[in-house]
Amino acid sequence: MNLSDHLADLLSSVTPADQLAMQAARERQAQLTKPPGALGQLEEISVRLAGVFRTPKPHPRGVAVVVAAGDHGVAAEGVSAFPQTVTPAMVGNFLLSTPAGAGGAAVNAIARSLGAQVYVLDAGVAAELPDHPQLIRAAARRGTRNLRLESAMTREETLSLIAAGASVARQAIGAGADVLIPGEMGIANTTPASALSAKLLGLNPAAVTGRGTGVDDSTLAHKVEVIRDALARRGSQLSDPLGVLADLGGYEIAAMLGMMLQAAALKRAIIVDGFVEGSAALIGVALAPALRDYLFAAGLCAEIGHRAQLDHLKLTPMFDLGLRLGEGTGGVLAAPFLLAAAATLREMLTFEEAGVPGGSEPALAPEHSLQG
Amino acid sequence: MNLSDHLADLLSSVTPADQLAMQAARERQAQLTKPPGALGQLEEISVRLAGVFRTPKPHPRGVAVVVAAGDHGVAAEGVSAFPQTVTPAMVGNFLLSTPAGAGGAAVNAIARSLGAQVYVLDAGVAAELPDHPQLIRAAARRGTRNLRLESAMTREETLSLIAAGASVARQAIGAGADVLIPGEMGIANTTPASALSAKLLGLNPAAVTGRGTGVDDSTLAHKVEVIRDALARRGSQLSDPLGVLADLGGYEIAAMLGMMLQAAALKRAIIVDGFVEGSAALIGVALAPALRDYLFAAGLCAEIGHRAQLDHLKLTPMFDLGLRLGEGTGGVLAAPFLLAAAATLREMLTFEEAGVPGGSEPALAPEHSLQG
Repeated sequence: MNLSDHLADLLSSVTPADQLAMQAARERQAQLTKPPGALGQLEEISVRLAGVFRTPKPHPRGVAVVVAAGDHGVAAEGVSAFPQTVTPAMVGNFLLSTPAGAGGAAVNAIARSLGAQVYVLDAGVAAELPDHPQLIRAAARRGTRNLRLESAMTREETLSLIAAGASVARQAIGAGADVLIPGEMGIANTTPASALSAKLLGLNPAAVTGRGTGVDDSTLAHKVEVIRDALARRGSQLSDPLGVLADLGGYEIAAMLGMMLQAAALKRAIIVDGFVEGSAALIGVALAPALRDYLFAAGLCAEIGHRAQLDHLKLTPMFDLGLRLGEGTGGVLAAPFLLAAAATLREMLTFEEAGVPGGSEPALAPEHSLQG
Repeated sequence: MNLSDHLADLLSSVTPADQLAMQAARERQAQLTKPPGALGQLEEISVRLAGVFRTPKPHPRGVAVVVAAGDHGVAAEGVSAFPQTVTPAMVGNFLLSTPAGAGGAAVNAIARSLGAQVYVLDAGVAAELPDHPQLIRAAARRGTRNLRLESAMTREETLSLIAAGASVARQAIGAGADVLIPGEMGIANTTPASALSAKLLGLNPAAVTGRGTGVDDSTLAHKVEVIRDALARRGSQLSDPLGVLADLGGYEIAAMLGMMLQAAALKRAIIVDGFVEGSAALIGVALAPALRDYLFAAGLCAEIGHRAQLDHLKLTPMFDLGLRLGEGTGGVLAAPFLLAAAATLREMLTFEEAGVPGGSEPALAPEHSLQG
């Protein structure tokens, strides 16, 4: 199958969540031994998980995060606080053998502490990466072209990275992941993420361009100008989301899109971590609207454009810890909320089952106490 | 040792967190392979954990939640949407044998999904509770007196429940808990929690009185009046926090206070879940200001007085899921954040260790890309 057909096949496999299971879950939530609505947002998460897993008693088990690394030609414009050499160095860090286990980066430490698997994908790093048994290689080119001046990727490269992301998602799911977290690392990658968000949401670049790893005011202003120039090029039309991704995106963003589409096609839950992940999700729902049913927002990230992405995706973030690291770290932190939400539906008893007074008829306040 | 001496002993064992370990942790966080501050609130949590566990590389392992159940004479005033019979029924539910394991309540399901231990304490339920091997009995009386009319508890009862809470905390810590979550169940217990908060924070009762399990507008107005009456009685002075607790509190609140003091005395981290737990924490810091160093706020709960409690305690909530269930559910959900925060300090490598460019000197944006 060629890459175009592969994508078409993937898109046609992304079908809506199971509305009947969601309805049954909603009814079950209302009968569980707690005041109605007392579990807040966790109840809605549980109902959405019922839709994803096609059962009113969902049981997601394994959690996996895939860190896709890529470099960006636009780094030449000086839009990041860090040099591009950090990308390959961090890939090394993700894979390094340490006393605690594989990997010395935040995502490794957090995933280990919460029992999540980590996969590392070279989606297109601008360096020779040393061989490592845990490094999954999928680079189409060593870094994208400079999106200020030209299309960042070719259509073929984009399709190839989508396929690579889908492949690693199948690998993770085959190894037991029911919750998949696309993560990323790539110096300068908030620039393509902002460009994609401005284009897809029809917003002024300044409204969706933030400080990334922490640039100063003048670099931020320059970053906005770079994105304005990119959008002013004769780029792709909104009616062609894949073209927009090729034009303004990046290899790791394409790979994360592939992961999301594949996980949704296989009816797994996807946690969308931060702003760069959010830009992949925007392309995803433009290509396959039903993808949205499988997406769960982690925390609100500190990048200013994140809220606009989540509003468009109609997703509610679960926390606001001020994270702005990427790597899928926020997604891993959010995974326990999904597991816990599913557990309430699956393992809590109803008022009737537990023999607790209350239930579907709201109990009235007693006129008299049972106590003397 | 009599109960008064026991409390005095406990209070004198609550010493401040280790400032040197915190300073070392802060310095280490600044060297870890991420942009400075990119882990947001998780960094401050990690530093505070270093202070609690007296090491810049803290390693909290076990998590335990203790659900203390108690009844309230003030339920006779019709301040809750549920009848008092729900309290013993829910204790039964916490202990019930179910296909998934022990307990069919939210806290059981959530704790199982996240690997936390659950302890159930009868702090003073207004019913004969059937014997159960997992039920820890500590009731001094079957429900408090009506705090609208008289002191809810005697001083001796209060001391006895503090000692009982301390005892179950020692049991949980002895069994491996490094993170302790006091939780509660008790129909009408947001009324004493609001009364304690109004008194200790010097606020109008209306500002700290919420809907609890979900009372309507007229019941809410009545609840505020009941609390006003309680505060208008010739009660205890602020200079006597134990007296205030006896006067306006409840048995499960006293038990949670005992858990907090004991966990802090044994240098363990404590997650303060919601509004009722918060009222115990307010008494705790009034008695032993250093207790605050051991407290971590879970989510912001939906009770309106919770924010004022957290402001007074100088604690930042980790999420806002709109929970208002109690049982320690929010605390269990927050525990993975503590474990992950500690893991970043303990297991992440520094820039130097990982051979990643960057580190203590802020890296400058490159004039030229390394890529062609």
